[in-house]
Amino acid sequence: MAARFYAIKDEVRIIGFDDGPFRRGQETTLVVGAVYRGGRSMDGLVSTQVAVDGLDSTVRLASLINASRFRDVRVIMVDGIAFGGFNVVDIHGLYKDTGIPVIAVTRDMPDFNAIEAALRHLPDSQTRWRLIKSAGEPAPVETRPGKSVHIQSAGISVGDAQAIVKISATRSLIPEPIRVAHLVAQGIVSGQSKGKA
Amino acid sequence: MAARFYAIKDEVRIIGFDDGPFRRGQETTLVVGAVYRGGRSMDGLVSTQVAVDGLDSTVRLASLINASRFRDVRVIMVDGIAFGGFNVVDIHGLYKDTGIPVIAVTRDMPDFNAIEAALRHLPDSQTRWRLIKSAGEPAPVETRPGKSVHIQSAGISVGDAQAIVKISATRSLIPEPIRVAHLVAQGIVSGQSKGKA
Repeated sequence: MAARFYAIKDEVRIIGFDDGPFRRGQETTLVVGAVYRGGRSMDGLVSTQVAVDGLDSTVRLASLINASRFRDVRVIMVDGIAFGGFNVVDIHGLYKDTGIPVIAVTRDMPDFNAIEAALRHLPDSQTRWRLIKSAGEPAPVETRPGKSVHIQSAGISVGDAQAIVKISATRSLIPEPIRVAHLVAQGIVSGQSKGKA
Repeated sequence: MAARFYAIKDEVRIIGFDDGPFRRGQETTLVVGAVYRGGRSMDGLVSTQVAVDGLDSTVRLASLINASRFRDVRVIMVDGIAFGGFNVVDIHGLYKDTGIPVIAVTRDMPDFNAIEAALRHLPDSQTRWRLIKSAGEPAPVETRPGKSVHIQSAGISVGDAQAIVKISATRSLIPEPIRVAHLVAQGIVSGQSKGKA
């Protein structure tokens, strides 16, 4: 059963997650969650570590949110469907464990053939592949005229998810909570942020 | 000679620094710089470590900025005049080493008698005290009707500094770059941010 948004406010509270860069051989990597009022301003920040190519990202995010003062956010956004390499987020599981709808956002349409091929080199490749497929077919959201990002979602209608992504993409193609989480994770791990997220 | 601002834009680029919490006995603490367009949105993030009760905060901030892609910011803001306990920032030295004007912002008027007394327990107390005094008499800036913060500045007129603080305090009494740097430093070190900064 999906949470229903009768009216989506400009300042709908969102927590957006992204991971930091990591080197081969590193056991864990930083994951940052930026709590935002829509695409406008930061209300708070959370952080944790997930195992590189591990299987713990869903449980880490759920317990981070549930133990925090930000349990009242209306939406969880994740940048892509995996952190720390191929530590795939189970977006349906994350929704179930937190009661908060989840939207995964990617800039480009994922290349599922390439992902399936890369997964074969990892343990538990069937589990990872199942989680990726269960996230569903990516749907486009036109966040700027003629330019789209792609989303997968859990616990929320596609229409509501698209509306929230549009509202929060105030400064670039991607929602502000994810863009800022990316800058923070990179700036903390590398000493300075680089891309535009 | 102070940098002159002929017209201060709403999106004047500012880097705002704050430190993370630390425990007694810890050697260094995290310092975060949030690069903002005025009080509106984040352009990037930098980070470094400074020694707790050390004397390296000025040189650490200067080399962090000078080595970064954010050398073109127009203003450096620091939350208070010291990081990592009593690791005092030499705001005039930081201006000289970077060529970028510096504004130190405090919510309450500093209690200089209490600071001088606390410093006596530390090595190099004369050096620290001299840096604190050389930052000059704090000037009030009314960022909300009837509510003020206090600033000390280097390389910029008090009037320009006051205008920039007002422009960038979009969401609270204190400028957005500093408020967000505070949330990030706390969220990274403690796992979640707490205060409103």
